[in-house]
Amino acid sequence: MPTHPLEEILHPQSIAVVGASGSGGRGGGFVAPLLEIGFKGRIYPVNPKYSEVSGLKAYPSLRDIPDSVDYVISAVPASQVLNMLEDCSQKGVKAVHLFTARFSETGRKEAAKLEQEVLKTARKHGIRLIGPNCMGVYYPQQGISWDDGFPKESGSAGLASQSGNVAGEIVETATSRGVYFSKAISYGNAIDFNESDYLDYFAQDPETKIILMYIEGVKDGKRFFKTLRQVASTKPVIILKGGRGKSGTRAAASHTASLAGSVEIWETAVTQAGAVSAEDLDELIDLAASFYFLPPITGRRVGVAGGAGGTSVLAADQCEEAGLDVIPLPMELREELKTRGVPIWDWIGNPADMSIRMDDNFTTGDMLEVMARYQNFDLLIAIVRGPHHRHQKGMPVETYLEEYKLKESSQKPLLAVAVDSSQDTEDDADWIWQMMRQVKAKLIADNIPFYPTIGRAAIAARKLIDYYQRRR
Amino acid sequence: MPTHPLEEILHPQSIAVVGASGSGGRGGGFVAPLLEIGFKGRIYPVNPKYSEVSGLKAYPSLRDIPDSVDYVISAVPASQVLNMLEDCSQKGVKAVHLFTARFSETGRKEAAKLEQEVLKTARKHGIRLIGPNCMGVYYPQQGISWDDGFPKESGSAGLASQSGNVAGEIVETATSRGVYFSKAISYGNAIDFNESDYLDYFAQDPETKIILMYIEGVKDGKRFFKTLRQVASTKPVIILKGGRGKSGTRAAASHTASLAGSVEIWETAVTQAGAVSAEDLDELIDLAASFYFLPPITGRRVGVAGGAGGTSVLAADQCEEAGLDVIPLPMELREELKTRGVPIWDWIGNPADMSIRMDDNFTTGDMLEVMARYQNFDLLIAIVRGPHHRHQKGMPVETYLEEYKLKESSQKPLLAVAVDSSQDTEDDADWIWQMMRQVKAKLIADNIPFYPTIGRAAIAARKLIDYYQRRR
Repeated sequence: MPTHPLEEILHPQSIAVVGASGSGGRGGGFVAPLLEIGFKGRIYPVNPKYSEVSGLKAYPSLRDIPDSVDYVISAVPASQVLNMLEDCSQKGVKAVHLFTARFSETGRKEAAKLEQEVLKTARKHGIRLIGPNCMGVYYPQQGISWDDGFPKESGSAGLASQSGNVAGEIVETATSRGVYFSKAISYGNAIDFNESDYLDYFAQDPETKIILMYIEGVKDGKRFFKTLRQVASTKPVIILKGGRGKSGTRAAASHTASLAGSVEIWETAVTQAGAVSAEDLDELIDLAASFYFLPPITGRRVGVAGGAGGTSVLAADQCEEAGLDVIPLPMELREELKTRGVPIWDWIGNPADMSIRMDDNFTTGDMLEVMARYQNFDLLIAIVRGPHHRHQKGMPVETYLEEYKLKESSQKPLLAVAVDSSQDTEDDADWIWQMMRQVKAKLIADNIPFYPTIGRAAIAARKLIDYYQRRR
Repeated sequence: MPTHPLEEILHPQSIAVVGASGSGGRGGGFVAPLLEIGFKGRIYPVNPKYSEVSGLKAYPSLRDIPDSVDYVISAVPASQVLNMLEDCSQKGVKAVHLFTARFSETGRKEAAKLEQEVLKTARKHGIRLIGPNCMGVYYPQQGISWDDGFPKESGSAGLASQSGNVAGEIVETATSRGVYFSKAISYGNAIDFNESDYLDYFAQDPETKIILMYIEGVKDGKRFFKTLRQVASTKPVIILKGGRGKSGTRAAASHTASLAGSVEIWETAVTQAGAVSAEDLDELIDLAASFYFLPPITGRRVGVAGGAGGTSVLAADQCEEAGLDVIPLPMELREELKTRGVPIWDWIGNPADMSIRMDDNFTTGDMLEVMARYQNFDLLIAIVRGPHHRHQKGMPVETYLEEYKLKESSQKPLLAVAVDSSQDTEDDADWIWQMMRQVKAKLIADNIPFYPTIGRAAIAARKLIDYYQRRR
């Protein structure tokens, strides 16, 4: 199999940032993020206004750079792009990421015409384009990033997003759930490489195990769904569609010049291709966590433990509404509880309401352990309520989690609901928040995906089960 | 109109806690929370095992208390309740809150029989019962609470919840969104006062402007829906139903001995009665925030500003899917932007994507101000993204919010989406979280409801509009 053209351009020895500026962060200069994440090759800021950018010598133009340049990030205005491409050609540049925007997405005719000329010029010189109107590439292992807040740690999720802001939100939010990236690419108006190229690339990429996409409009529908069908049969592909309704379609046009189509046709096509459709950003992140951490599950029978009172009742409702099967506690399990002297053996159910035990010396973790040994359950969900009681202040997180024994009980696929009670309280919010951060870090370290609510956990589990059932 | 029986018992001069213990917090002793919230009357711990509870003299039995007792909180085991009621009768007690559980909800016959005897005995002595199997009353103005973490501040939301855990979550989460309570009552198995009594009471209560309910099963469906129809025509009633599916019904039976019915029939009946049905706890809180802060809105045309790139596209989708009308920017508004020299006047849309302005000196607040002056919009939504850039660290919250001018631009009904970016980042999470807490406090101080996502804001707005359209 020949090397994918994206693979070729994503390992540059040198990067020039044309139109570089000193300000960091998202949308600011691209030099600081490259330094922050530790790009190993040479970095050349280009800007006639500065002699130095982020501590590096700046060059007035691309042509003034003494060495060769493999990859260019363009932050110059649209009107300068054609000239810049000529300079690129002179320097033997193979790929340009056009952060430069205000092309066809403005809805202005002359801007759309210029965009076409940019593509023609690039093709003429054999230069491949990412964008325009996008944030480009985050590839932690290679030390490439557009945001100096992105983690240096690599993972096995690949992301292709038409929007840079959405890509940024996905990277940051997913990271806080333990999902790290092989590479994330924000690709904007997609005049050269398009959605099918990125999908195809991630399919071949051994560093990528699950694929996330945010798409406003596809350039080539026929090719995309054909590629999607192939890819989804070997790697999970989770797609969020932007521009689903009338007003969203208008917004997509003025954002990435995308022609969005009917949402019903889209959803059907995605599902028929064997991919997973996410309803919103939160769900995309939830699904990413599920597919990142959970094994292939093909049964829907769930055991739930850790809720209390009414929250157990609501947990049952929401699991069932998500399409999981909340089976009654099997008789053999009740018998075991009875044998072990659990006084509530005939009363405790599924979900196991842990508030009814009172002084019984029987924890949520004990319950999960018992459930995990019965073949009736295909998966388990543990509800980890945030601390409420002041005597838990300063408690080591290990002690706090003893109630749950999450790792020890996880022979079955296990999802955790980490309810952040710091959102609820004023006086104790600080220490509760710190404790919940430790709880979440522990869950990530134990490879357990977590979700903020039982409803979101249940939906993320069910869509994973659907995927693996289809694939089987 | 005669005084409601609940009104009579909720202003006790003295409270005895029978079976009192020293441990505080939810489910612990009830004495500490009464002290913490500042009950003005006399508090009598009763427990033969202690001479003192939480610094107060403890009595071996109710009969040993030298003064009169108006209200009793029972934390003794179920087997002792009948005797305790005889003591109550001797002391002239008018009302008993039975925290005591393990009655009919256990599914055990003898426990259900005992529950009926408890009711009979109370009736014989003219004692009214809250519960059993519940947390009882939180009435900050009277200094009554079951949880020492609940706020002392009063508000105008009334809550009746069959579950104590759900009630606790609602009080705490709603409070963090600026919604405070006149009184919240957790009422459990409801053998004496039931859902209709609580609803009826809140309807008459001048301290209560909106009513929240969590119900697993109604004791008297005919009376409930008749009462609901009357009440919902004058005060918004927002109801979350627990025990909607097969497994939830099972869980509800073992939680509050409730017989839950078909969810479809329930939903239809609630809506036909003119009340508002919440799908889950999060939605209940969102609706509480909407009805607490927003005026009656009867039109669906929404203007959205503050999103960036793809998040604007998704905002449009989610508003539309929630049933709001995301109208294009009216021509007169574009003309005004043009006159004011805004270079993106012909490109900016609704939602107003603020990422496209680049160096234009035109803020989200400016956009909201302009939108607020046009009659085309019935309501506005401002997306307040949490800080990402390190140069915002240590920035006063007022400076951070200058971009939005939320209060100044709010002649129209305004909802805010407060996106907490501390969830996303590791290194900067602490200061971002602190800043977001200040942002939220400012929104509350300005009487602006806020929501964690655009989707949740849109649904909470649409259900409010539906309610006021029906009432009109």
